Amino acid sequence: MATPGRRVAIVGAGFGGLWAARGFAHTDFHVTLIDRNNYHTFLPLLYQVAAAEIEPEEIVYPVRSILRPLRNVDFLLADVRGIDFAARTLHTGAVQVPYDYLIIAAGSATHFYGVPGAAEHAFSLKTLDDGVRLRNHILCSFERAAQDMNAERRRRRLTFAIVGGGPTGVEFAGALAELMRGPMKADFPRLDLGDSQVILVEGAGRLLPSLPERLGQYALRRLKKMGVEVRLNTVVDHVDATAVRFGDGSTVATETTVWTAGVRGEPTASNWGLPLDRNGRVAVGPGAEVGGLPGVYVIGDLARAEENGKLLPMVAPVAMQQGTWVAKNIRRREAGKAQLAFHYRDHGMMATIGRNAAVASVGGLALTGFPAWVAWLAVHLVKLIGFRNRLFVLINWAWDYFLFERMVRLIVPSASCRGCD
Amino acid sequence: MATPGRRVAIVGAGFGGLWAARGFAHTDFHVTLIDRNNYHTFLPLLYQVAAAEIEPEEIVYPVRSILRPLRNVDFLLADVRGIDFAARTLHTGAVQVPYDYLIIAAGSATHFYGVPGAAEHAFSLKTLDDGVRLRNHILCSFERAAQDMNAERRRRRLTFAIVGGGPTGVEFAGALAELMRGPMKADFPRLDLGDSQVILVEGAGRLLPSLPERLGQYALRRLKKMGVEVRLNTVVDHVDATAVRFGDGSTVATETTVWTAGVRGEPTASNWGLPLDRNGRVAVGPGAEVGGLPGVYVIGDLARAEENGKLLPMVAPVAMQQGTWVAKNIRRREAGKAQLAFHYRDHGMMATIGRNAAVASVGGLALTGFPAWVAWLAVHLVKLIGFRNRLFVLINWAWDYFLFERMVRLIVPSASCRGCD
Repeated sequence: MATPGRRVAIVGAGFGGLWAARGFAHTDFHVTLIDRNNYHTFLPLLYQVAAAEIEPEEIVYPVRSILRPLRNVDFLLADVRGIDFAARTLHTGAVQVPYDYLIIAAGSATHFYGVPGAAEHAFSLKTLDDGVRLRNHILCSFERAAQDMNAERRRRRLTFAIVGGGPTGVEFAGALAELMRGPMKADFPRLDLGDSQVILVEGAGRLLPSLPERLGQYALRRLKKMGVEVRLNTVVDHVDATAVRFGDGSTVATETTVWTAGVRGEPTASNWGLPLDRNGRVAVGPGAEVGGLPGVYVIGDLARAEENGKLLPMVAPVAMQQGTWVAKNIRRREAGKAQLAFHYRDHGMMATIGRNAAVASVGGLALTGFPAWVAWLAVHLVKLIGFRNRLFVLINWAWDYFLFERMVRLIVPSASCRGCD
Repeated sequence: MATPGRRVAIVGAGFGGLWAARGFAHTDFHVTLIDRNNYHTFLPLLYQVAAAEIEPEEIVYPVRSILRPLRNVDFLLADVRGIDFAARTLHTGAVQVPYDYLIIAAGSATHFYGVPGAAEHAFSLKTLDDGVRLRNHILCSFERAAQDMNAERRRRRLTFAIVGGGPTGVEFAGALAELMRGPMKADFPRLDLGDSQVILVEGAGRLLPSLPERLGQYALRRLKKMGVEVRLNTVVDHVDATAVRFGDGSTVATETTVWTAGVRGEPTASNWGLPLDRNGRVAVGPGAEVGGLPGVYVIGDLARAEENGKLLPMVAPVAMQQGTWVAKNIRRREAGKAQLAFHYRDHGMMATIGRNAAVASVGGLALTGFPAWVAWLAVHLVKLIGFRNRLFVLINWAWDYFLFERMVRLIVPSASCRGCD
């Protein structure tokens, strides 16, 4: 195969991989972007899929659409089964991909920290399939409860435990409370929702530990007002299909435990012979290269990278900025120019709690309430890829906001609720 | 359980069941509507889901949303496992539903007429899951072909055989041809689409046998112009995973055979002890009641009903009109009034072929081309349930029409294309 220049292989079409691919636009590098899905997922809105607020299709975008303007970038739908670093070749099922430079941006997965039963019984919120599976399970739990004459089991089906008081846990707890007290109440007029409960569990002494303390306090007040039971200083030590047990020995009967408490490097990376730390991440040098493997870069959540002795957080902006920067450094290397150092530009963090209620920490400012909520909406709408997705999400949000109604309450595919009766 | 009046059980939330339920609005009948899905499916647009033109969620609508204004109608998400006609009780897994009147509107399924291999290897287009499965398979076939060095296998993966030249077959053939020559061509610039082919097979000597002859001729001309190969007077006698064989002994190598050639009564009905004909339908009297089972009505596709000695067709308008009519007759019976006879008001039939091209047979008029296409768009948009669905479908259609682009090209859930590489 004739290659119009040096060959770059990129593993993963998340934020890191896509931004890296875009960094080679209109160059004569021949780039192959590989992902196991044919779409990019906008993970910051995944919790809204799980809360039946927006459709799964609205937070994903076909990779081939994104790459169309980049004529030197090919897409390959495949799992990377192995990497031959000596021969500089990726192995997938049908195709071998030779490379001169390799950028690995395979992302992260839920970290259960070895809590017994968690990996088997708790729901994750890390992939589109996770979001759809959790949505189907929640809607199905209401349908099952409506048919159940046993009060104890009914209560268990309407109890939802969320583990982890970071942004995802807080956002999902709020969205779920609004789903239950709004649309579900209207859908199930004969079901006693006094039985229903959302419980948010956090190991630290406050919510949103990565944000200023005032914002955590605001989130706590708002969630309590919405009827969410928040348990601080509480760790989970066991999960099964009908209960979650806490460190103090107490248990809550529930068929739904959602785990947002930890993140680790994508486990697939362990098939590739890379050196992993105990969180499944690959330690990289200041240039994002793996020690002993020149030309092999790891970026995004999978990389354990430091700046000024501090670990970079596992968030989308780090991955995007690293993607752009690594692409630029590879181009500079080929042009014989000096390598640039990475500097993370932290634009802040935000989390929405519910209607008119959010928190945002931006450039030293700590916003709460309506201004933070408007900022959250605007930022997420702008960052979402694709005009159609933005439009459809906006329509769904407006519908939800003005009519207190969620249009999206489908159990699809239908097999997900078999055995509901 | 106290019942505020007579109890009506309705099986199936398709057109027949929903229209029957609506017929009891604001009465003191206590109605239970039972379906195995929590949504109603607008089947006339299912082929567009399979052709990646609209999202699956846009043609379905939550049953509980539809029933919300009807305070005397309950919904039950369940499979009907058995019916005790003597005790007048439906059995589902968790709940028994006693009734005074029973309306069975369970619909239809694909009829393979015993052609060997068809049930195992051909794709159906009768449920939402069917549509999504076929879409995923088609998109995945392109991804696989793009990775395949074997020319023969590549051609087989890009060949799509559609069996049945009725409205669904014609509409799907046109939509698939447009998908391939538009968005797929742009998505796979390095794939030789000269290898790709859409073949439409019909046993009769013309397309659209249920419409005026001129319309069938128009459809044939348009489809040929779009590159579709149409084989008339051709029956299928064998299907397997890599080929379809015709009555004359010739075969076409394909991994995708779509079966739109026949419809039978929903097979689940065979568990209920109803007398079925060889097409799995229940013969009913002029009042839609089953002989020997007073108070038990069968309507829609599952019913074999006659009017003036002619069988009623298995189409949505028959089901809707029967639903309304049966509900009215049950109310009249309870009020001691005479039963009304059924009269099918045939509003005509239409089928779209592609951009600016459709056929419509309405009230003696036979329209083709742009006027028929506009009529088709308007009728389907109006009939679709839910303002949000109408809006989203309209946006997708406009996108497709003006930008020659389909926004919807996702292989979801992701497991559907595992083994793609």
